[in-house]
Amino acid sequence: MTQLAELPEAECLQLLERRNLGRIALVVDGQPRIFPVNYSMNGRIIAFRTGAGDILAHAPDSKVAFEIDDFDASRGTGWSVMIEGIARDATESFDDVSWAARGTAPEPVAPGSKPFWVAIEPSRITGRRFGPGPA
Amino acid sequence: MTQLAELPEAECLQLLERRNLGRIALVVDGQPRIFPVNYSMNGRIIAFRTGAGDILAHAPDSKVAFEIDDFDASRGTGWSVMIEGIARDATESFDDVSWAARGTAPEPVAPGSKPFWVAIEPSRITGRRFGPGPA
Repeated sequence: MTQLAELPEAECLQLLERRNLGRIALVVDGQPRIFPVNYSMNGRIIAFRTGAGDILAHAPDSKVAFEIDDFDASRGTGWSVMIEGIARDATESFDDVSWAARGTAPEPVAPGSKPFWVAIEPSRITGRRFGPGPA
Repeated sequence: MTQLAELPEAECLQLLERRNLGRIALVVDGQPRIFPVNYSMNGRIIAFRTGAGDILAHAPDSKVAFEIDDFDASRGTGWSVMIEGIARDATESFDDVSWAARGTAPEPVAPGSKPFWVAIEPSRITGRRFGPGPA
């Protein structure tokens, strides 16, 4: 029988530390959009680099979501972690969040110049896991 | 040298047909959220089943995003496809979109009763691919 469990925040953070590809959702003129990004972490802060584009134009000082997941259909297992929070343009600011972000080393796999830093300051971190459990 | 290309809609639809796990982004009281879902397709319509929860409460008749992606850091390749559109509660409606959705057979991997149908009617389908190209 498949069982579903909520993940405590500490376990969500461990999963976030182990990965480097996630997805940010933001709202552009009332329309949600989703963009994959290579990220790194510093404590609870998510950091990534980006070029001039929708993320830089619309994420800073707005509410965003960030998500990672992993599913294995053959085993019937899976998990996902979601962060809700505020994005910050961390390129040049001297606040704690921006410093924390710039202290990391995200490695963007996608090509293109990415001179700008974005940080996500979480207000809520949630996760779920499911898999085969006791019958 | 890594090259980046926009994908034509026909190729985006082919990629969507080959997968069954995507992520929907929706807005709850001004806060974007992202949820992984197992989906199926009928033409350009995305369909999935869900339980009573945030998706059912906030997606229908609202703008949403839907995304799939695949990245291989070791090869330096990746792609992503994003749909922007309107979600519909397709559980009992007799409109064309709801019929199209209920004509599919999504297979949710996550446990839990999922008696409700949600359809996403795309207004825009975009995709990107990158990988090693001619030097």
